[in-house]
Amino acid sequence: MKQILLIGCSLLVTLMVNAQQLTKAEEKNRAFTGAVATQKQYRVIYQMDSGDPKIIEKVLRNLNNALNDPRLKGKLQAELVAFSGGTDAYLKGSKYEATLKALVEKGVIIAQCANTLHERKIGRDAIYDFIGLVPSGNGELILRQTEGWPVIKP
Amino acid sequence: MKQILLIGCSLLVTLMVNAQQLTKAEEKNRAFTGAVATQKQYRVIYQMDSGDPKIIEKVLRNLNNALNDPRLKGKLQAELVAFSGGTDAYLKGSKYEATLKALVEKGVIIAQCANTLHERKIGRDAIYDFIGLVPSGNGELILRQTEGWPVIKP
Amino acid sequence: MKQILLIGCSLLVTLMVNAQQLTKAEEKNRAFTGAVATQKQYRVIYQMDSGDPKIIEKVLRNLNNALNDPRLKGKLQAELVAFSGGTDAYLKGSKYEATLKALVEKGVIIAQCANTLHERKIGRDAIYDFIGLVPSGNGELILRQTEGWPVIKP
Repeated sequence: MKQILLIGCSLLVTLMVNAQQLTKAEEKNRAFTGAVATQKQYRVIYQMDSGDPKIIEKVLRNLNNALNDPRLKGKLQAELVAFSGGTDAYLKGSKYEATLKALVEKGVIIAQCANTLHERKIGRDAIYDFIGLVPSGNGELILRQTEGWPVIKP
Repeated sequence: MKQILLIGCSLLVTLMVNAQQLTKAEEKNRAFTGAVATQKQYRVIYQMDSGDPKIIEKVLRNLNNALNDPRLKGKLQAELVAFSGGTDAYLKGSKYEATLKALVEKGVIIAQCANTLHERKIGRDAIYDFIGLVPSGNGELILRQTEGWPVIKP
Repeated sequence: MKQILLIGCSLLVTLMVNAQQLTKAEEKNRAFTGAVATQKQYRVIYQMDSGDPKIIEKVLRNLNNALNDPRLKGKLQAELVAFSGGTDAYLKGSKYEATLKALVEKGVIIAQCANTLHERKIGRDAIYDFIGLVPSGNGELILRQTEGWPVIKP
């Protein structure tokens, strides 16, 4: 009986100490659960401009995480624009074909910078047939942001 | 004659197969040609915060691509702000002097973060004389975005 | 006396040559001192998505620079959201505890992506107790930008 009381007391003390560790500002911050979605529709454009496979995979994972965020689910129009090294992800034979196709079927716009194709002497035939072409990836980012689309560079 | 027919048929089959490869969503995506410019004036601020020459060159190439995008040509007010390692591009003797000067002549604002100069003990004399100074590169990005300028970090 | 005159003349010539080196556009650019703050309140969300200590330190330094920019001082509501490798900064025992706590006391919102915790099998107990949780870091960036918050990825 004494032992149980002792354990109970020490637990209580531990809890109190833990609670006391947080200042008022810290408690308030801990309670933060994120911005609240109030609109019916959201938009986002993802910038994929690195050929590093880790970055390409991060972009695709990030984009899927955004589509699946409970606050945005079913409300998000997304676009993915590749330029510079990011073009690698769209080259026929890359390992991202299935992921990209799945995104297109979900209504995500998948676009390639025509400028990069020109600079790197890559023919349109060398990238997947289902990819759209924009004059420049940078111009696309500027136009979209001006239209109010958030941009994310993973 | 038979041979020509055979080749013709196989070409037709190939075309049909190729066409069938694309789903409706894929066809629609392939036809995408980018956001449309509807405004008379556009703005953008480029963030140059890495001393990696590959990144510096990418920033300058990206900025030029944006200025030359047929949708934005002659309509784009651009600013380039350097901080952190990006300051290297502005140091007298860097290989970017001609490119930077050409941008200034085109009306691009070229600015340096004063905070970085202070942190790295770099005198204003050590950077090109034609560079402007802003209190902090981060503050500049915040003010510009709040004013509606898109930001691009290459 | 002759010597003083000579030095004076050569100084004058040097100054004139220096002045002549700048074109009209360059003079104008040199005089640039940054965007002007006209609002009473500003907001910003920082993206911390890399576990590279150099990037984590850059994010924290950049955020502090923004808070201290004379144009924004006392007017800036900031949020810091970690996802992907950036989560490392929040792990108990990291060297950033004091810096993060100081930010919380200044009213900065410090948030972690719940998705990343799930993907990396990190319990909430493994990160500092004063951190807030958002469903996804990417969703948070999209919602904030849609609300008009600038985003900065250092």
